[in-house]
Parts: sequence; C-alpha cells; structure tokens
Amino acid sequence: MTTMNRQVLLASRPTGAVTESNFRIVDVPLGAPRDGEVLVRNHWLSLDPYMRGRMSDAKSYAASVQLGDVMVGQTVGEVLESRDARYRPGEIVLTPLGWQIYGVAKADALTAVDARRVPASYYLGILGMPGITAWIGLNEIAKARAGETLVVSAASGAVGSVAGQLAKTAGCRVIGIAGGRAKCDYVVDSLGFDACVDRKLDGWEDALRAACPDGVDVDFENVGGAVLEAVLRLMNNAARVVLCGLIAEYDARAPYGYNLRPLLVKRIRMQGMIVFDWKHRYAEAVDVLRAHLDAGRLHYRESVVDGLDNAPRALIALLNGENFGKQLVKLV
Amino acid sequence: MTTMNRQVLLASRPTGAVTESNFRIVDVPLGAPRDGEVLVRNHWLSLDPYMRGRMSDAKSYAASVQLGDVMVGQTVGEVLESRDARYRPGEIVLTPLGWQIYGVAKADALTAVDARRVPASYYLGILGMPGITAWIGLNEIAKARAGETLVVSAASGAVGSVAGQLAKTAGCRVIGIAGGRAKCDYVVDSLGFDACVDRKLDGWEDALRAACPDGVDVDFENVGGAVLEAVLRLMNNAARVVLCGLIAEYDARAPYGYNLRPLLVKRIRMQGMIVFDWKHRYAEAVDVLRAHLDAGRLHYRESVVDGLDNAPRALIALLNGENFGKQLVKLV
Repeated sequence: MTTMNRQVLLASRPTGAVTESNFRIVDVPLGAPRDGEVLVRNHWLSLDPYMRGRMSDAKSYAASVQLGDVMVGQTVGEVLESRDARYRPGEIVLTPLGWQIYGVAKADALTAVDARRVPASYYLGILGMPGITAWIGLNEIAKARAGETLVVSAASGAVGSVAGQLAKTAGCRVIGIAGGRAKCDYVVDSLGFDACVDRKLDGWEDALRAACPDGVDVDFENVGGAVLEAVLRLMNNAARVVLCGLIAEYDARAPYGYNLRPLLVKRIRMQGMIVFDWKHRYAEAVDVLRAHLDAGRLHYRESVVDGLDNAPRALIALLNGENFGKQLVKLV
Repeated sequence: MTTMNRQVLLASRPTGAVTESNFRIVDVPLGAPRDGEVLVRNHWLSLDPYMRGRMSDAKSYAASVQLGDVMVGQTVGEVLESRDARYRPGEIVLTPLGWQIYGVAKADALTAVDARRVPASYYLGILGMPGITAWIGLNEIAKARAGETLVVSAASGAVGSVAGQLAKTAGCRVIGIAGGRAKCDYVVDSLGFDACVDRKLDGWEDALRAACPDGVDVDFENVGGAVLEAVLRLMNNAARVVLCGLIAEYDARAPYGYNLRPLLVKRIRMQGMIVFDWKHRYAEAVDVLRAHLDAGRLHYRESVVDGLDNAPRALIALLNGENFGKQLVKLV
C-alpha cells in the first residue's frame, strides 16, 4: 500500500500581496527513507514572516523556493521510520520539511526535542527560531542595559513578545507597538510591558512619544515603514536598532524610503540580524529561554489553524498582522 | 586706539542651498581679554560640511548658530594677549573662535599646537577633526581588517583622503568615489587608492561594481544619497557602514529615502559617528596620524582661499563639492 502525502507547493510568485493562488495543494505518493534518512509525520508547521521572502526570486540571504517546490518551513513531528542510528520511531524532532504532512529528511537536518516538559510546538516558537532571535537580538546586537527604554514592534508576535519580556527581566522600560486593542491589552496585562501603543489608532505616533518620555535607547524592529521611522525620531544618542524584520514592506512593490539623518545626528547603530548566523549560540539561547519559561518569567501565546489546507490563508493573515501570537498550523 | 575686528555673522537661515545672502560681514570693536581669557589673532579658518547643519535650526547634535551670531568654526591662530598662565603671546593655538579675524576665547577652550614640524593649518585637517574622524571611524566603528574592500566617498576630501590612506596601511583594498577626473587621478596616483570612481560620469554605478569584484565590506560614507545606495547594493554579509556625513542631503528640503532591505538581508551594521563623542581618544589619534605623516605614509592636500570675506563663497563651493582637498581660509 502506498501512503499518500499532502503538500503545499509554490505555484507562482506574488507580485505585491500574497494570494492563495500563489500556492497549489497536491497529493503525492510518499517516498521511503534511504540510509541516513528519517521518515517523519509532521504535527506542527510554523508560519513565519520570512516565508514571504522565500516566495520571491529577489536575491536574499537564503535561496528562493523554486516554483513547484514544497513551501519551506520548520515543523515538529514524530519519527515513523529511521534509517539512521540517532533516531528511533516515536521520537519528536524539529525538521526543515516544510508545508507537508509527511516528509523524508536527512538525519543531519533534524534536531531531537524534549517534549515532556513543554509542548512540542514550543520548539517552533519560544524555544525555537523566534525565541532565539529575540535573545540574540537583545543580548548580542542591542546589548540593552537596565534602565534603558526599549521599543519593540509586532509586540504580541512570536519574536516581539519574547524580546520585550526578556528586556523586562533585564531591567529595561519596555514599550510595545501592536495592531489593535486586544493585542495591546495582552502585551501590557499578560506580558508585563510598561505600555503598548496601538498603531491602528489615529495619533499613535504621539502616543508613542508620550510613552517614551526619556526617548528610546533600543528599537527591536520587526515591522519597518512608518513604525520604524516614528521610533527613529524618538531615539537617543548612541541608541541601537536591531533590524530583525520589515514585515510592513514585504508585500510592497518598491522599498520604503527611510530618513537616515537621525542615525548620523544621534550616532545610532542599526544592525540587521538573521538568526541563522548564530547557530553556535542556539543551545545557550534555548537553555536561557527554558530557564525563564520554567521560572514563569515568560508568557507565550500560540495562534493555531487546523489543517495543512489552511496554511496559505494563515500565512496571508500573518503577513497582514491578523494573527495573535506565534502562528502554527496543526497537522494532526 | 580701538582695534576693529571683522566677523562673518549668520544673517538668515538657508532654505535649500546656502547663498551669500545668508551671511553678513561686519566690523566691530575688539574686546579685551578678562581673567582666564586669551586674545587670539586667527591665521587659518577651517571650513567643514558640518557648518551647514549649524546654519539650520533643525535639531541636531550641536546647537544651531543663532541669527546675528558669529559663524561657528575652528581656527588656528597666535596668542596676542593672555590673562591665563597657560598661554603666552606668540604661542600657536587651536580655537573655536569661528569666522573672525580676532577673538577672545576662554583659555580652557584652547589647545596649544606644535607648529614647528608641520604647518599650523594641519591641526585643522589631517592632525585635527577631519583626520581624527577618519581614524576613529576606521578603527572604532568600521573595524576594517586586512583583505577587506573599503569604499570611501568624497575620497579626495579632508576626511575621505585620510580614511582611505589609513585603510591602505591596514591592508584593505580601497576604492574611492569622487567628483571629477582630477580628483580621481589624485586619489589613485597620489593617495594610492586601488581605484577611484568618478560619480560625475554616466555609468559610475557600473564602474563601482566593476571596481569591487569581491563586494564591499566597509563603506566610509561622507556623501549619502545615490552614492550610499549604490554602495549598499554591493555590500557583503556582515559589512559595516560608517555614517560620517550625508553632504548630498544637506541642502535638500526633504530627506533622501533610503532602502534598508540590504541592511536586513546582509546583516549590515550602519553606525552614525560624530567625532566629538571621542574626545578621550583625540590624543591617541593625533599621535598615530603624526607618526604616519612623519613616515611619509599620508599625503595631504589643502584648498586655500584668501581672506575672511571669501569664506561664505568658499563654504558654498565646499558644499557643492568644488573644493579639492581640505578647505581653509587664510586670514593673514
């Protein structure tokens, strides 16, 4: 009997906003693992803003997804069959298998995860790339110090929520920026930020200014566009910008034009970061994040859609800021 | 007998390009020094791009010149009369006295200079703020390493010429950008850069690309606008931009809009610098620069206009890139 595997392929490249027609869902026969390979049943697929970049053929830090290929992404799943001594059936693993129900991966590309104390899905979020990104950005790029004011955009999101909470534990004053009342309430009430500015309200830039009476020392930037420009105007001398994402621009046909005079006048350091550069620090980051989580110092929220067929719609919603917390697709 | 002093005042703030009507030349009676003050006869006035910012009332890193005040600037001159034990008549000093023939300064604001081995004017250029800026930017901000490719704009200018030569001594491949054939020839033939691209020629961006076959690791940016954007497009992963000046923008009514995607995608670090933040390193910088100069490793070129009355026109020319080398006004 041949098992069938469902996959979401990149059917066409978006021009501007992503649409469902950019994807194609197919059922294909499932291959068998060869020596050194492992067959995995995916349980959770992570959806992340970087996927927009992979759908484009513009040159970037990682190769584009080719038309007709399975959409790229991390999953956690269960080993069904292993042709590698390191993995046994039943183990839970972090994989790069992308948008599909099953997959065969090289064993070298897998990471075993401990899903006894936290849900396996956490390795796609707070204990995964987003959480690690937050920790690296804050500690290695921003070098935020106690008493400084830190602004984080997309504050309720997978990266922003962790960055802000870590900054609170480091003694910073932390101001979030998020879209909508519910997210802002969550950021303040559940995550413990000092304030959160709703960028969907008129006058949000004035509200941001009012929330930062001592100016801004660190910007953990996930959004870009008008949000980044507003923060730049408030920055203090020797401030730092962790340029982690520019989601406001990802659908734009032309890049946003930023005013760089504040960087010169205020001697700001702006630095792009991609978490893949920091693989040598992943283990340390996860240890720290897990300790904070165990101690109850980190709150975490997931936004779950059910079923692979809904992944395209969920990515589009994520790119529009409609998710609320780390976006996952449940595959079992 | 009352000695008269000639001064250039800020008469009005420029909107867009600076014009001579923004200045007013006046003759006023010369005051006498009080306790702790020194009367100086200025010999050389330095003209620098930062002066454009001081003419504006836009918030910046230093206070604007007020309307009716003497234009700001550094000079070197001779002590005529001293009411402070540290200075005696005949000594040569670096001063902040600005655009005037004489001036009374607080002794604390003066720096004695050794004009026996190098011309006194060098303390306004290669051994002064421009040279120190180049050294700090290269060593503290860019941290340029042997084998890297460094691009420097305004390459024949007071800062750029030193930055590029220092980078050559550090083992970098150094590409200049300058306006016009004469400057480019000078940058290659006299300063020893590996190449220099004439930004006034059609196709200069292609020429820049061709001159940087291994991409760009460091940009020592003095110009901004299309020049900075062209360099950003060529930058390698983990490249650094020393944002030292944006002279292309200083006259513009609206800021240039920069594309920041390269910063994110290539994890570029861009950092604004103002030399005044580094006063604790001035002495070290001057020692290093003097040693290079003594050893014949640094070439230096001055562009001199004669007489205070010509200072406004000379600043306008400087802002238009018409000077060739460090711009000075000779006052004796």
